[in-house]
Amino acid sequence: MAGRKEEELNGVTLLGNQGTQYVFEYAPHVLEVFDNKHPGRDYFVKFNCPEFTSLCPKTGQPDFATIYISYIPDQKMVESKSLKLYLFSFRNHGDFHEDCMNIIMNDLIALMEPRYIEVWGKFTPRGGISIDPYCNWGRPGTKYEQMADYRLMNHDLYPENIDNR
Amino acid sequence: MAGRKEEELNGVTLLGNQGTQYVFEYAPHVLEVFDNKHPGRDYFVKFNCPEFTSLCPKTGQPDFATIYISYIPDQKMVESKSLKLYLFSFRNHGDFHEDCMNIIMNDLIALMEPRYIEVWGKFTPRGGISIDPYCNWGRPGTKYEQMADYRLMNHDLYPENIDNR
Amino acid sequence: MAGRKEEELNGVTLLGNQGTQYVFEYAPHVLEVFDNKHPGRDYFVKFNCPEFTSLCPKTGQPDFATIYISYIPDQKMVESKSLKLYLFSFRNHGDFHEDCMNIIMNDLIALMEPRYIEVWGKFTPRGGISIDPYCNWGRPGTKYEQMADYRLMNHDLYPENIDNR
Amino acid sequence: MAGRKEEELNGVTLLGNQGTQYVFEYAPHVLEVFDNKHPGRDYFVKFNCPEFTSLCPKTGQPDFATIYISYIPDQKMVESKSLKLYLFSFRNHGDFHEDCMNIIMNDLIALMEPRYIEVWGKFTPRGGISIDPYCNWGRPGTKYEQMADYRLMNHDLYPENIDNR
Amino acid sequence: MAGRKEEELNGVTLLGNQGTQYVFEYAPHVLEVFDNKHPGRDYFVKFNCPEFTSLCPKTGQPDFATIYISYIPDQKMVESKSLKLYLFSFRNHGDFHEDCMNIIMNDLIALMEPRYIEVWGKFTPRGGISIDPYCNWGRPGTKYEQMADYRLMNHDLYPENIDNR
Amino acid sequence: MAGRKEEELNGVTLLGNQGTQYVFEYAPHVLEVFDNKHPGRDYFVKFNCPEFTSLCPKTGQPDFATIYISYIPDQKMVESKSLKLYLFSFRNHGDFHEDCMNIIMNDLIALMEPRYIEVWGKFTPRGGISIDPYCNWGRPGTKYEQMADYRLMNHDLYPENIDNR
Amino acid sequence: MAGRKEEELNGVTLLGNQGTQYVFEYAPHVLEVFDNKHPGRDYFVKFNCPEFTSLCPKTGQPDFATIYISYIPDQKMVESKSLKLYLFSFRNHGDFHEDCMNIIMNDLIALMEPRYIEVWGKFTPRGGISIDPYCNWGRPGTKYEQMADYRLMNHDLYPENIDNR
Amino acid sequence: MAGRKEEELNGVTLLGNQGTQYVFEYAPHVLEVFDNKHPGRDYFVKFNCPEFTSLCPKTGQPDFATIYISYIPDQKMVESKSLKLYLFSFRNHGDFHEDCMNIIMNDLIALMEPRYIEVWGKFTPRGGISIDPYCNWGRPGTKYEQMADYRLMNHDLYPENIDNR
Amino acid sequence: MAGRKEEELNGVTLLGNQGTQYVFEYAPHVLEVFDNKHPGRDYFVKFNCPEFTSLCPKTGQPDFATIYISYIPDQKMVESKSLKLYLFSFRNHGDFHEDCMNIIMNDLIALMEPRYIEVWGKFTPRGGISIDPYCNWGRPGTKYEQMADYRLMNHDLYPENIDNR
Amino acid sequence: MAGRKEEELNGVTLLGNQGTQYVFEYAPHVLEVFDNKHPGRDYFVKFNCPEFTSLCPKTGQPDFATIYISYIPDQKMVESKSLKLYLFSFRNHGDFHEDCMNIIMNDLIALMEPRYIEVWGKFTPRGGISIDPYCNWGRPGTKYEQMADYRLMNHDLYPENIDNR
Ligand SMILES: [Ca+2]
Ligand SMILES: [Ca+2]
Ligand SMILES: [Ca+2]
Ligand SMILES: [Ca+2]
Ligand SMILES: [Ca+2]
Ligand SMILES: [Ca+2]
Ligand SMILES: [Ca+2]
Ligand SMILES: [Ca+2]
Ligand SMILES: [Ca+2]
Ligand SMILES: [Ca+2]
Ligand SMILES: [Ca+2]
Ligand SMILES: [Ca+2]
Ligand SMILES: [Ca+2]
Ligand SMILES: [Ca+2]
Ligand SMILES: [Ca+2]
Ligand SMILES: [Ca+2]
Repeated sequence: MAGRKEEELNGVTLLGNQGTQYVFEYAPHVLEVFDNKHPGRDYFVKFNCPEFTSLCPKTGQPDFATIYISYIPDQKMVESKSLKLYLFSFRNHGDFHEDCMNIIMNDLIALMEPRYIEVWGKFTPRGGISIDPYCNWGRPGTKYEQMADYRLMNHDLYPENIDNR
Repeated sequence: MAGRKEEELNGVTLLGNQGTQYVFEYAPHVLEVFDNKHPGRDYFVKFNCPEFTSLCPKTGQPDFATIYISYIPDQKMVESKSLKLYLFSFRNHGDFHEDCMNIIMNDLIALMEPRYIEVWGKFTPRGGISIDPYCNWGRPGTKYEQMADYRLMNHDLYPENIDNR
Repeated sequence: MAGRKEEELNGVTLLGNQGTQYVFEYAPHVLEVFDNKHPGRDYFVKFNCPEFTSLCPKTGQPDFATIYISYIPDQKMVESKSLKLYLFSFRNHGDFHEDCMNIIMNDLIALMEPRYIEVWGKFTPRGGISIDPYCNWGRPGTKYEQMADYRLMNHDLYPENIDNR
Repeated sequence: MAGRKEEELNGVTLLGNQGTQYVFEYAPHVLEVFDNKHPGRDYFVKFNCPEFTSLCPKTGQPDFATIYISYIPDQKMVESKSLKLYLFSFRNHGDFHEDCMNIIMNDLIALMEPRYIEVWGKFTPRGGISIDPYCNWGRPGTKYEQMADYRLMNHDLYPENIDNR
Repeated sequence: MAGRKEEELNGVTLLGNQGTQYVFEYAPHVLEVFDNKHPGRDYFVKFNCPEFTSLCPKTGQPDFATIYISYIPDQKMVESKSLKLYLFSFRNHGDFHEDCMNIIMNDLIALMEPRYIEVWGKFTPRGGISIDPYCNWGRPGTKYEQMADYRLMNHDLYPENIDNR
Repeated sequence: MAGRKEEELNGVTLLGNQGTQYVFEYAPHVLEVFDNKHPGRDYFVKFNCPEFTSLCPKTGQPDFATIYISYIPDQKMVESKSLKLYLFSFRNHGDFHEDCMNIIMNDLIALMEPRYIEVWGKFTPRGGISIDPYCNWGRPGTKYEQMADYRLMNHDLYPENIDNR
Repeated sequence: MAGRKEEELNGVTLLGNQGTQYVFEYAPHVLEVFDNKHPGRDYFVKFNCPEFTSLCPKTGQPDFATIYISYIPDQKMVESKSLKLYLFSFRNHGDFHEDCMNIIMNDLIALMEPRYIEVWGKFTPRGGISIDPYCNWGRPGTKYEQMADYRLMNHDLYPENIDNR
Repeated sequence: MAGRKEEELNGVTLLGNQGTQYVFEYAPHVLEVFDNKHPGRDYFVKFNCPEFTSLCPKTGQPDFATIYISYIPDQKMVESKSLKLYLFSFRNHGDFHEDCMNIIMNDLIALMEPRYIEVWGKFTPRGGISIDPYCNWGRPGTKYEQMADYRLMNHDLYPENIDNR
Repeated sequence: MAGRKEEELNGVTLLGNQGTQYVFEYAPHVLEVFDNKHPGRDYFVKFNCPEFTSLCPKTGQPDFATIYISYIPDQKMVESKSLKLYLFSFRNHGDFHEDCMNIIMNDLIALMEPRYIEVWGKFTPRGGISIDPYCNWGRPGTKYEQMADYRLMNHDLYPENIDNR
Repeated sequence: MAGRKEEELNGVTLLGNQGTQYVFEYAPHVLEVFDNKHPGRDYFVKFNCPEFTSLCPKTGQPDFATIYISYIPDQKMVESKSLKLYLFSFRNHGDFHEDCMNIIMNDLIALMEPRYIEVWGKFTPRGGISIDPYCNWGRPGTKYEQMADYRLMNHDLYPENIDNR
């Protein structure tokens, strides 16, 4: 039935695994990768993650966000169940919205060494104002670094309508 | 009544055919083409395909996606009923989302030898996260190769809002 | 400036309070009430609560929901900041979706002794299926009990469109 | 040109008036009425008022709401520019959401003596929760009183989707 | 080709007519009717009319509305092009929103003698507030009179969201 | 594979048939039925038909509509491909919108002898006004006749927003 | 952490289980139940299931639908992962849309013996027409049987807009 | 009243004309033009045409599309009523979607000799897949030819969401 | 209270003025300007104008549009109430859609001498087709002229979906 | 729990503070900053602010807007609660829409010395017209200045649909 053979799933230990442990303290080590079978081609993979929650570092109040992660893989690709567990590990972690997005991107860069990556968080409002941080990164000294500049320059020229309802 | 004459429909055997066989194992050979009557002009054809389903290669669980395929034809154009049968042939095939999109694009390149093509899959979530792979291709050594670079660089600057409902 | 006088805010200790403690274990005691100034009139108050999260009692995986709570007050009304803290207290609590909704309604009945109340949870999907429990209650032996029957009979004749995206 | 004659606009002093004074302290006396020319018929008039703002009675923080007012006139109808000025007079007034809606309805009952009236406020969230009070009233001892009961019983069986964005 | 025969279109003089005169002063006489071919059955016909404009009777400023007209025909049905011309005749007519809706319904009752009719106008805002009058009517002494009561009692329990944008 | 056996598809000649003839003159005889396997239960079947087009009986201009057909079957159910061919047969037929809806309902009553049926057409505008006829029918002398009355009385209390764009 | 204790999860064997077998032939036996902890109260549970696919019994072509299942539990409640597996078992099963909905409802009635249940399928179009069957059931001889009649009579007075895009 | 004088409407014979003939066989000769009064300026004119229908060249089945036509005029501009008649002339014409779009653009180029033009058709699905062809053209040897290349390269980076409902 | 001082409102005679005259014949002289307080910065001002109506120059039939006007001011800025009166002055003026948009832009250029300006009209359909003209202008010999070229080249790559409802 | 340590929150005095004073006169001094922990990276932070209200400088009438603020931080980042208090300080301040947006951007430039910033206000209509000013700024003599030019040139090519409802 399958296109991916067993050996092409080496290192994927969490997907379909029954005894999954949910860790709620910041845990970048849960991230797992598998091999990119199409490294000769630049292509995008996007993760839509509407179930992100963390804590305010000053007040301890829970924060909620939808996070969009897009990247161009090189040799390694992050496995999505491990990504889920990683994002769950912010559940009892306190940090500013802007810091969370940068940390997530840094961890994924360290994990996958992608060609390009971007992370966009869209939080629910506190005191009537919501905050949406966006960061991106291209491998230094390559065309992907210029890609990052270009995409930042063109970022979000059309902010979505927000009325807090 | 018709603009296309009978002989211009040569090779189109599936369209309007009663005894259609639905194959649910990966079957790229079902794809059929017809002649492009406007090869002197670059133009786009897009297929919207919201009825794609395949299997997870690890767990065997069905996956579901909407696939968008856009291409600039050269001499050959894929006939849409044969495209439908081809996409149905993934029904009992197991592969990662990212692999499916690359395979579909590869098969269409081999079939039509188009000037440019792109394939975007938007899957439903598993464990709260959904995955949307996008790949594209321009004929090497032509301006369409640069077109592919350009469109990748500009890809999806505005991710659609996703809340899993 | 104010219509509500200081003494009409008696018992409201959490609203505007700096040192708020966020409890993540089930804590119905944090709920607070204030007096209904219009008890001679039946009217509805609705709370829209899109930031609810709890845990699966079997797997420990986080669940997410939007909860809608509507009630007709009698003498007491729940203060909204205390309601927020109460809902946050499910953060590390494990229970089925159906049980959570019934528990929340039971706690609010015990707290406010309202004339009528209903609670509707709309969860994000697991395995492609999402669950939306709805329960309601009218004070036994009064017209509000019949109101509860009537509203249950008319509940959700038009389910919202769901495509998990 | 006009259907309404000058004398049918008696008492309408604010509409089209240049030197409008904007009062930001609760001022029910600014409300004005004109005659209902169709008193032989029951019909509805609805005001959509998305520019309502008041203050929290405890913290002084501004609150924002859209208010929907619907009524069946008897002999008098509220003039819409005076209604605007009246709603603006809550700008520096502090009261709970639930109290504001009841006060507005009481003032309009006293002003117009309508057959039926309802007022629905939809506020923006504080601490992730938004509050939507709804009250209504039918002239006691008439069929409009039963209408009020009926409409309350059928109120908001389909709460709108709220995600605070 | 046609189901309606020539003689069944008697009295329809405006439809398809080249030299249409557009009158911009209130002109109920332009309305035309044709025969209902299904008088043995109660059924609804609705007109959606988003191009209504009149003038404020006090200031002369243009007002704009979408009008929805629904009716159950008896023997006569209003022809839609004549209805268009009739609605255009309010272009330079000054009247309050509430009066316009009642006048339109009265004229259509006089014209068609329908079994039931209702008219709903939804105007654009002035000073941040928009006004939506709704009136209806059932033939007195028949079940359609009770239908009018019933529909008024159930009118607009779910006001559409309005934010003036 | 199948639940329906071959003999339960008796009379279904068009579904999957290659040599389908498309008739563009009013042709009620193309309609086909199959047996209802659940006659002991009242249930609804709805057809969404957004590809309806006919001609204006006076001017010959094409008209376009989406038609919604809902019914409770008795012993016979209309086969959907034959319904498609029937609706296509209005392509060169000229009739008023109101007449088309009544004719379609009459033909389906004659064909299926359903317990209940309703037909709602929503046309595109001519001269800025669009027309939406709705008719329904319940078997005379049964509870379904009262159902028709009830549904007509409750028909379309919330007309959809129309702005002709 | 949990509200549900281990013994209250007796019989729930599939949830969180690693070695899930996906069966693609009609398999009602995979359904599992757990105990309703709130049998003293009537309340609704809704499942949103946008990943349903079956086959046409005549042509073998895959069909796709979103299914909405709502019920009032009595003593037993269907476990959602087993419901997922049950719905997946239609993947290679051929039946008409109308038959599938009735079969699903029959199986859930046999499994749970609920007080009330309804099933609504919304399929994608074939030949420009889509079919949406809806069936419901209340326990015979109880008020839930009348509830079923009432809800059928009020079913889908506002068909959603469909344009096949 | 008018800005356009009578002589500036020379050649416009169909607009407002009573005896319009609707031709349903491909008829490019019905197209009419009027003079561009602003030839010193490059500007866009767009036609939204949601009422396009043609036939499948192989099966004869009707197809439906919305067509968007945008152009920069030079000396001549197409009159919109003649454009309507021209598009209606495809009603009984059989051609593939891709061919129809190219033919329409070719005819408008021959008619108007515009500086730039583009045509985008969005069809309803057959067999679950819909096809959207897009072609464009700039006057050869001018900057408008480069404009065509540029717009093709940037075409449809954000395909609209399609779910066939 | 104010940031703008009295003398900075010189020449603004219509805003807040009671005796406004509404002129319905083309009247560019009603336009008024005030000083740009930020001439050292390029910035955009957009007017959303959904209440535009004019007449067809050939048939006299009223036309309706929403107009979007965006500009980069130099020394002068158009006052919005005077803009409203100016747009109202097209009420009894007859011109083609394309001409109206060019005339409005020409008048605003003459009035304000802006750095850049664009005007987009979106009209309601006649005969099933709607027309949306767009024109723009940058000060000749400056970078704003190139800005106009650039924005025209990128204009409306994503036409909004139009279905005339 | 926290990622930000206490000393990294130096200068943040308002967040979580109980005795917040709400000032309703223009008060730029309430703005507070904290340190950017990722100054080595260009990234965006966006604030969605739908609760802005000020006064008309000529008439004193309240105005309402949603404001979108996006910036690339350098060393300092504005704290969001202080931003809320700053925006509230326009509550009784009178200024034209265009002036407010420029003032807000100027104050944030002075406060944070960002690399790039933009401010977009979207106001509710007065007299049927709404005004949306947009200004931006990049640090002079850096690539961010060119970024500002580029983003202005590409600003709002797709104005959102506005119908004042
Ligand atoms: Ca919103
Ligand atoms: Ca959402
Ligand atoms: Ca969604
Ligand atoms: Ca969808
Ligand atoms: Ca969705
Ligand atoms: Ca929302
Ligand atoms: Ca809104
Ligand atoms: Ca709106
Ligand atoms: Ca709107
Ligand atoms: Ca609208
Ligand atoms: Ca619309
Ligand atoms: Ca549509
Ligand atoms: Ca649709
Ligand atoms: Ca859709
Ligand atoms: Ca539309
Ligand atoms: Ca609109």
